[in-house]
Amino acid sequence: MVTVATEADGIQIQDITARAGVFSQEEIECVGELWEEYRDLGAEQCGYHFIVDRDGSQVLGFACYGRRDLTDGVFDLFWIAVDPSARRGGVGRGLLTASEDAVRKMGGRMLIAETSGTAHYEFTRKFYLNMGYAAEASIKDFYSMGDDLAIFVKRL
Amino acid sequence: MVTVATEADGIQIQDITARAGVFSQEEIECVGELWEEYRDLGAEQCGYHFIVDRDGSQVLGFACYGRRDLTDGVFDLFWIAVDPSARRGGVGRGLLTASEDAVRKMGGRMLIAETSGTAHYEFTRKFYLNMGYAAEASIKDFYSMGDDLAIFVKRL
Repeated sequence: MVTVATEADGIQIQDITARAGVFSQEEIECVGELWEEYRDLGAEQCGYHFIVDRDGSQVLGFACYGRRDLTDGVFDLFWIAVDPSARRGGVGRGLLTASEDAVRKMGGRMLIAETSGTAHYEFTRKFYLNMGYAAEASIKDFYSMGDDLAIFVKRL
Repeated sequence: MVTVATEADGIQIQDITARAGVFSQEEIECVGELWEEYRDLGAEQCGYHFIVDRDGSQVLGFACYGRRDLTDGVFDLFWIAVDPSARRGGVGRGLLTASEDAVRKMGGRMLIAETSGTAHYEFTRKFYLNMGYAAEASIKDFYSMGDDLAIFVKRL
């Protein structure tokens, strides 16, 4: 069941991020920092919304989204990750759909997902395309030389 | 002379932002928030670097740039503004060149300037093109309906 993340989910969220197999150490730490702001300040105050797909007490995956400053109704999907043992079961699809629904409820009209252009992220890019996102823009050599930024956009 | 901004420049920076004629109230407040972080914490701690072009005690313009998280050597030009009375004198050009030099010194290899695609910002877009930036990507209806995001990139 997809629901708003609570304090007890923090350890599993960080564990899933570390085990997802696609994030660098710096990215794993960034998720941790955003989580701590969310846990300590709340989503309204810090701007980061965390949701989880939970089966009993087990977190299967999570997503984190928030409003883009200086825009009228644009939100960023900062993070989405599924436990490797729970893949191919629609967890990612459910989390992304729930993020879109929540963004719509907050008056959002666009959700942006940024990811890497490397082969390592091919599954992720296909996932966004399958979910109705357009590969709207890219910046060559953004993350590092040879690692482009790919910007996926869905109008809600 | 272009130099690192000091506490005394704050009032003039905010005044120039307000009088520049292109920024919304929300954007003016955003500059103020970044400035306060810079003043109170310093550039290294908060990640926002402010420079000014100062003629005696008068600030002619300012720029604000900083490192983009999770990238290897990408920096954002967050703000650049010139006092309306000091335009067409090369102040903007000097501030942008100084920003690029500073970014290079910090190991940066790319500077990104995001701006609006509306007619109101045509001068700004031409300025970036003249300064050697490429109009690398855009997102339709980003800031608001009819107001696209234009992403300008310079490899340093």
